[in-house]
Amino acid sequence: MSNEPTHNPKLKSFIDVPQGSHFPIQNIPFGVFVPPSGGSPRVCTAIGDQVADLSVLETNGFFDGAALKGKEVFDKSSLNPFMALGPAARREARSVISKLLSEDEPTLRDNQPLREKIFFNMGDVQMKLPVQIGDYTDFYSSREHATNVGTMFRGKDNALQPNWLHIPVGYHGRSSSVIVSGTDLHRPQGQTKADDAEAPSFTPSRLVDFELEMGFFVGQGNDLGKPLSINSAEDHIFGLALVNDWSARDIQKWEYVPLGPFLAKNFGTSMSPWIITLEALEPFRTSGPTQSDPEPLPYLKSSKPSTYDIHLEVHLKGEEMDSPHRICASNFKYLYWSMAQQLVHHSITGCNMRTGDMLASGTISGPTEDSYGSMLELSWRGSKPLKFPNGEERKFIKDGDTIIMTGWAQGDGYRVGFGECTGKILPCVDLGL
Amino acid sequence: MSNEPTHNPKLKSFIDVPQGSHFPIQNIPFGVFVPPSGGSPRVCTAIGDQVADLSVLETNGFFDGAALKGKEVFDKSSLNPFMALGPAARREARSVISKLLSEDEPTLRDNQPLREKIFFNMGDVQMKLPVQIGDYTDFYSSREHATNVGTMFRGKDNALQPNWLHIPVGYHGRSSSVIVSGTDLHRPQGQTKADDAEAPSFTPSRLVDFELEMGFFVGQGNDLGKPLSINSAEDHIFGLALVNDWSARDIQKWEYVPLGPFLAKNFGTSMSPWIITLEALEPFRTSGPTQSDPEPLPYLKSSKPSTYDIHLEVHLKGEEMDSPHRICASNFKYLYWSMAQQLVHHSITGCNMRTGDMLASGTISGPTEDSYGSMLELSWRGSKPLKFPNGEERKFIKDGDTIIMTGWAQGDGYRVGFGECTGKILPCVDLGL
Repeated sequence: MSNEPTHNPKLKSFIDVPQGSHFPIQNIPFGVFVPPSGGSPRVCTAIGDQVADLSVLETNGFFDGAALKGKEVFDKSSLNPFMALGPAARREARSVISKLLSEDEPTLRDNQPLREKIFFNMGDVQMKLPVQIGDYTDFYSSREHATNVGTMFRGKDNALQPNWLHIPVGYHGRSSSVIVSGTDLHRPQGQTKADDAEAPSFTPSRLVDFELEMGFFVGQGNDLGKPLSINSAEDHIFGLALVNDWSARDIQKWEYVPLGPFLAKNFGTSMSPWIITLEALEPFRTSGPTQSDPEPLPYLKSSKPSTYDIHLEVHLKGEEMDSPHRICASNFKYLYWSMAQQLVHHSITGCNMRTGDMLASGTISGPTEDSYGSMLELSWRGSKPLKFPNGEERKFIKDGDTIIMTGWAQGDGYRVGFGECTGKILPCVDLGL
Repeated sequence: MSNEPTHNPKLKSFIDVPQGSHFPIQNIPFGVFVPPSGGSPRVCTAIGDQVADLSVLETNGFFDGAALKGKEVFDKSSLNPFMALGPAARREARSVISKLLSEDEPTLRDNQPLREKIFFNMGDVQMKLPVQIGDYTDFYSSREHATNVGTMFRGKDNALQPNWLHIPVGYHGRSSSVIVSGTDLHRPQGQTKADDAEAPSFTPSRLVDFELEMGFFVGQGNDLGKPLSINSAEDHIFGLALVNDWSARDIQKWEYVPLGPFLAKNFGTSMSPWIITLEALEPFRTSGPTQSDPEPLPYLKSSKPSTYDIHLEVHLKGEEMDSPHRICASNFKYLYWSMAQQLVHHSITGCNMRTGDMLASGTISGPTEDSYGSMLELSWRGSKPLKFPNGEERKFIKDGDTIIMTGWAQGDGYRVGFGECTGKILPCVDLGL
């Protein structure tokens, strides 16, 4: 795959790509947008600070290869029809787009009227949730995160549960409340119970948190009763996005025994608007943590490096702060369980995966205190408040705080980036109770 | 509502309704079917042993009331467009159908050519999954079930968790693997760990179980951040169906700490093909268990009787048995938490419910040993095997066993029934591992 033109660090577009941009010609992410003039949502890619309307390229017959010809997958309000075509169609689309955007190719470069129909300033368009998500599953795949949480609640000696090193532990999330970056959320209200209280009360959550995660999206699925196998699992993955799995820790604590988190998570889950494909990430493939003690069961054992070196950051901006302040720097490669392992495990009892399903990693914490992917861990349950340059402190998220997640893979002179996943916590709504 | 003609026990149809039928003119369930001649799925109702094609009634202009005129919701492959119109449209449809089917109404009765386009023998049609389910949530709302399971695993004194009497405990399920009655399932394989084993192994599940549940379906939903209120919650419920939440107890035991059941449940969840509306069940409204110790928090407190008297049964038929054998008789009214409470609780932190979402009750066990809604309870963890007339015994489900669930509300000389929810457990598939 390293011979793909899209992996050539020297390749340049005729569209200006500012230094440090997340969207050079090597990336070619996929999203869904509404143009400045309005109209129905349609599929796009990004190049530098520009959004390119793929439905116009499609209408003009540029996607004329074996996998895409006549398919009409880009004048759609979600990526699902395109995702369902599988990896060959995705690679073909990347190849066509890469060629059309390259600096030596005159087709678009020299056709100003067509360029005006295709390209828009990113700041002028409305990005939509790019995928129609059938089911959303959330894993718990960072050993550091599971260990931190386990240490806080059960002590250091029993930090990891007995199953954790054998199973990519996961649970079903709520797909209806997955929202696109930039959608603000009200602080949730619900049942909480203080340790010394006799009974629960109905209150605003006092412990609203973020969780730094990455989500991946199923391209082609599998039929019920026909599990996926570890060595072909990646063929079923379309790409990845940043995910903020907002959490209300006090609601979670009271509700989660014995069936797991429920309302503490389903008031909203944010995702970045661009899906970054496995092809764009291929040059950054690397090995994850060693899995030798214990070794995974054969159905989970992979023969190749199965993660990616993706730098991840979280920034917080309070209403009284002049600018966002970085509070976490982590990396996707810290995750113990790979996407392929998560996907195969999910299907192994026969569960069918569908095009557009989202599987998120769980909080991605690293080995150092500044790499923890949640306020719970960064402030160590509130015992070590974070200090900000303007003198403010935070144990958890305050009304008016914006959380900004970002991430990129660093190439030789270019970045394959994910853009941003942002969201602000607004005050509670008045329920009249 | 008791003045509705559909609640008149004397009302009769010109279509023959056999004694004990689940589908008299008082019921008017909704489903989706494919006619014997094939074609696309469309919406139907049932009367006696006949299925009636509502898309033909729609095409002929019979749905000409304020809520349905011009809506075109019946020539669709799911009930969702109809469900999204809300209770007024549902009541209007019931009223039109009731009139057209009644013995005194000549419109259809005396039009043989039209009747031939509308009515089909139930045995000749293919029933489909009636609803496009966005999210599926499973509750745990039977006090008897939670107490039985808690007693088995934690002892009698700690049977109920501290939150159980305050919260309708629930968790997110998997919507992709919800299947319609009659779809068989292979025995799942996965990770299990015996208590005395050092490490888990990959095996066929030895403890496959059913769970007798009822599911209800959201009609009109709510927006993110705008919780529902207890006194209007029922306006958002379209109707109910039987649900079998298949469970692999050994897989569940190893995986479920700390995030809840996952693969142990998502290999398949069966539902009956007919949705029974709240209007059809209204004559059977009754009070559930008293909630006074403790009283629920105000947001969960309802001012009216909020459950229904629905008799429920489970039958098992092994391959060597001549006929199905009843193994459980329970009742929907045993559930501690009502549908309205489940729905309001689900939305209270701001979670949006969408048309077609399924909320299932959890296992419905009653007070007596023959009313327990799972093999786990009926055989008390395998310690009291069930005995069958042909001499066979069962602790859990054996390959080739068919589980048949059924249920009805008993009126004065008629039954409002749910039909059946059936499924057979087939042997494991060979995964080549």
